[in-house]
Amino acid sequence: MENFVTLRPNFSVKAFKYTYGLFAGEKMELHGGNILGGEVAKAGATTFRAVNPGTAEELPTVFHEATEAEAGRALQLAQQAFPEYRHKSADAIAKFLEAIAAGLETLGQELIVRAHAETALPEPRLLSERGRTASQLKMFATLIREGSWVDARIDRADPGRMPPKPDLRRMLVPMGPVVVFGASNFPLAFSICGGDTASALAAGNPVVAKAHPAHPGTSEMAARVIQKAARDCALPAGVFSMVHGTKPDVSVALVRHPSTRAVGFTGSLQAGRALFNAAAGRPSPIPVFAEMGSINPVFVLPNALKQRGAQLAQSLAKSVTAGVGQFCTKPGLVVGLEGATLDEFRQSLGASVSSTPSGTMLHAGIASRYGTECEKRLRIPDLQLVATQDKSSQDKSKTQAQAAVFTTRAQSFLKNPELHEEMFGPSTLIVGCESVGQLEEIARSLEGQLTVSVHATEQDLKEHGGLIDILREKAGRLVFGGVPTGVEVGPAMHHGGPYPATTDSRFTSVGTAAILRFVRPVCYQDSPSECLPPELKDENPRGIWRLVDGEWTQAAIAVASSTKT
Amino acid sequence: MENFVTLRPNFSVKAFKYTYGLFAGEKMELHGGNILGGEVAKAGATTFRAVNPGTAEELPTVFHEATEAEAGRALQLAQQAFPEYRHKSADAIAKFLEAIAAGLETLGQELIVRAHAETALPEPRLLSERGRTASQLKMFATLIREGSWVDARIDRADPGRMPPKPDLRRMLVPMGPVVVFGASNFPLAFSICGGDTASALAAGNPVVAKAHPAHPGTSEMAARVIQKAARDCALPAGVFSMVHGTKPDVSVALVRHPSTRAVGFTGSLQAGRALFNAAAGRPSPIPVFAEMGSINPVFVLPNALKQRGAQLAQSLAKSVTAGVGQFCTKPGLVVGLEGATLDEFRQSLGASVSSTPSGTMLHAGIASRYGTECEKRLRIPDLQLVATQDKSSQDKSKTQAQAAVFTTRAQSFLKNPELHEEMFGPSTLIVGCESVGQLEEIARSLEGQLTVSVHATEQDLKEHGGLIDILREKAGRLVFGGVPTGVEVGPAMHHGGPYPATTDSRFTSVGTAAILRFVRPVCYQDSPSECLPPELKDENPRGIWRLVDGEWTQAAIAVASSTKT
Repeated sequence: MENFVTLRPNFSVKAFKYTYGLFAGEKMELHGGNILGGEVAKAGATTFRAVNPGTAEELPTVFHEATEAEAGRALQLAQQAFPEYRHKSADAIAKFLEAIAAGLETLGQELIVRAHAETALPEPRLLSERGRTASQLKMFATLIREGSWVDARIDRADPGRMPPKPDLRRMLVPMGPVVVFGASNFPLAFSICGGDTASALAAGNPVVAKAHPAHPGTSEMAARVIQKAARDCALPAGVFSMVHGTKPDVSVALVRHPSTRAVGFTGSLQAGRALFNAAAGRPSPIPVFAEMGSINPVFVLPNALKQRGAQLAQSLAKSVTAGVGQFCTKPGLVVGLEGATLDEFRQSLGASVSSTPSGTMLHAGIASRYGTECEKRLRIPDLQLVATQDKSSQDKSKTQAQAAVFTTRAQSFLKNPELHEEMFGPSTLIVGCESVGQLEEIARSLEGQLTVSVHATEQDLKEHGGLIDILREKAGRLVFGGVPTGVEVGPAMHHGGPYPATTDSRFTSVGTAAILRFVRPVCYQDSPSECLPPELKDENPRGIWRLVDGEWTQAAIAVASSTKT
Repeated sequence: MENFVTLRPNFSVKAFKYTYGLFAGEKMELHGGNILGGEVAKAGATTFRAVNPGTAEELPTVFHEATEAEAGRALQLAQQAFPEYRHKSADAIAKFLEAIAAGLETLGQELIVRAHAETALPEPRLLSERGRTASQLKMFATLIREGSWVDARIDRADPGRMPPKPDLRRMLVPMGPVVVFGASNFPLAFSICGGDTASALAAGNPVVAKAHPAHPGTSEMAARVIQKAARDCALPAGVFSMVHGTKPDVSVALVRHPSTRAVGFTGSLQAGRALFNAAAGRPSPIPVFAEMGSINPVFVLPNALKQRGAQLAQSLAKSVTAGVGQFCTKPGLVVGLEGATLDEFRQSLGASVSSTPSGTMLHAGIASRYGTECEKRLRIPDLQLVATQDKSSQDKSKTQAQAAVFTTRAQSFLKNPELHEEMFGPSTLIVGCESVGQLEEIARSLEGQLTVSVHATEQDLKEHGGLIDILREKAGRLVFGGVPTGVEVGPAMHHGGPYPATTDSRFTSVGTAAILRFVRPVCYQDSPSECLPPELKDENPRGIWRLVDGEWTQAAIAVASSTKT
């Protein structure tokens, strides 16, 4: 069954009706089209297919790259949906998020099988990622139902003051359509219905998601779950769209579209910066929240190294190789004081890493870049390979990564800028320092990071307080005695950091505070009660925390402080 | 007395010691130099003098434009001061802010006389602006002493969970050196020791201020107050510097300096956008909070116009001409439904404006641009002058503005983009609509605004709910039944708005929330108590509000949840 959807006056595109296949046991036939609100569009001539990174074979469905008109249509629908969507109650939006979470679960094994075929990520990892994705959606549902996140502030009027003081009431409101770019390394949790989409929708913004071309089928499944949830919750269809694209054109068109109000992105420094530049160059600039490169340095102080070097080598090896080194928080740098204990640590980290079973990377491009980067490292004078995994003889698809541990001296690290850059894949670099001064010099030389980890005993901390001070300026999260991988999802998490870790160190992409990226304050002065949102009414019908005349309270305001119209 | 301060290995500049002249009755001799921490530097060959806008006469002191090296030196000192300053207690910083406030008062009449000579702003206005400036400083002192503004969040560990849940503690911390650009229209409250400087210092950031060349002497006085306060409070001298400059070079050098972490600016769209572009083009981009153009539309609905048109004309006339129309919140557009009542309103607004005493603008450049803009308006077909002030025969200096009321039809407004742009000076434009639909069309056509005002009766609000919805998307502050000028300073104020009102609609430049521009979150994972700032320790020694396991509380955490090192 086909019908035609008008995009522009002289322009129309084929769209397909289809069954959702979202009931347990029902198979979802992938259509390969762009999802523009309730429509499916395949106007463009350019198509592509997903590749199984484990076998190098193309998967059957043909996906249609979005044309610029389709990208524009998605944002036009989002803009149209915004006035209706932003007026939905917190409970209505919470139900929508919960319906998406439930829909993901309902897809059952089919989603996991497809995600595995497209990413080579093992089933247990995908199951846990699906769980995390659903939890995030539910977490935002809980957050907005409780409601205090809107940071409501009320300064009551004082008509007796000279000049009379007006009544002021301020809260956070949604900004408008948000464009979300799916990441390759988390096909669910940082992709179509991941944290960016969940937080943007929770705040009351429509979302246009750009599917990552490495997992278009997984993306379509997730998008159709959202599409169905929007329909089931009687929301305007334009509240969510998803487009495909393999080249930067579509991405830049999404960022430049006049209706786009903010952008969420997780990926490479190069791509993130390109989107940031496109947004900053708009006639009306918009914020881009790009989470990009980080080497997540680990500082191992002398007493800690002596006391628990062996144990640390084991946990670091796991952290370096987890997910085939494809986490943004992979520890890519370990810094310690040169000596016999560091030699031992080097050997045991090398042994642990090389004895880890090797894994398949997300796609051939990532695997090839990783291989090239490893070769480049080995050409750096003064840099040695400590250990590497054997190349699997089964690696027909050339996407297996050989995990590797490198080492070099502080001077070499300090003078080689390329050693400060993220290397995506299962490798790390141990840097030996001759002195505490050199340890601090390395800390000072670091670029912005998502995380910095410190392994220290009480004695170490007493002796190296200055180091902690330096490190705190470099990172969004300071980990003590642990590894940086494993990012908790909660109110206190900060997954962000100074550039180039992100384009905006003031915001997190993980945890409840992620919602703050997609809102702005609005202040109502002397507003009649009927024009105020519930969060700002005297009665405080939602019982949220508010800053009233400078004091935090959940109480209602007893006497109407403003009746002016 | 002279000494030499080394800037760079092969480069030195003359610096002058001087007495402060900050005790009541003691005269402050202006030195005209750049203030680099505790030093005074006059390395550059380019000098300028302030001009009295009332007489067109140059004032005696010669001011030295900063060289790029001096601008760099200011930021180098700020960077050096940061590690020490950011560790000062909230009380120590609060005392610093209070010392600045007290220092301003101590300057007494001398400051007011100089500010009047440089800006032509009348004494009562300058006295009230000084009061406001001191109040702002004290408000931030109170805010940081109370301490809850750091948005502390603690998610406690759960070692029994699989995998074990770590202890996470997050709060806002300063970003580093902030560059503040003084605005021409508020020589105190939005200038050297205005809201930007107060909020940046309060957050724990050193400040490098760029003096506005229209009031360099007022700027030097304020800067020396801060310099003395820093010395009296035993703070590192680099916590504050001030540089002079009349051309964009110095401004861009300040924004591009690698130590600069954020920028505060109030001024024109052109200058603000240039700084934004310079910041976005840095190797490591930084946020620019530029408050720029706004026409602050006023919508007058039919019943309100009928009931209180005459009264509204009077209050709007005051608002348009206050400060010679040089407020960023000046209402530059009034929109109503065409008819006899709008005709009457036009006449009475015209009469009120033209009978207001005319005023001297801040400098010849502003006055000349205003004159040119008025002439340009009169060449627009379909646009009429309703009334204008007489040109004062006393205007030898050509800086007197003729306040003016223009009017046109909705169609003309909709098709002339220049009528959507801010016109700095005492004029406004009345736009008559033929229908409610046209009223909404105008609302939809508006660019981002600092404020939108609505005059409406209860009946009007019932009939025009859709209009309010449109307007809320356009502005940072919605004023009901009032005028937009007169910006309250408090927790609930939002002085910001979508572009081009500002470059970042998520932040305010007025009120306590302004501090949020200059901070970023840091998360401590499993941190030993001794490495935690007081705000995150179990004991909650400062008694601040914290989100502990998702609940807001001022209580301490009874049992240490993390003892790991």
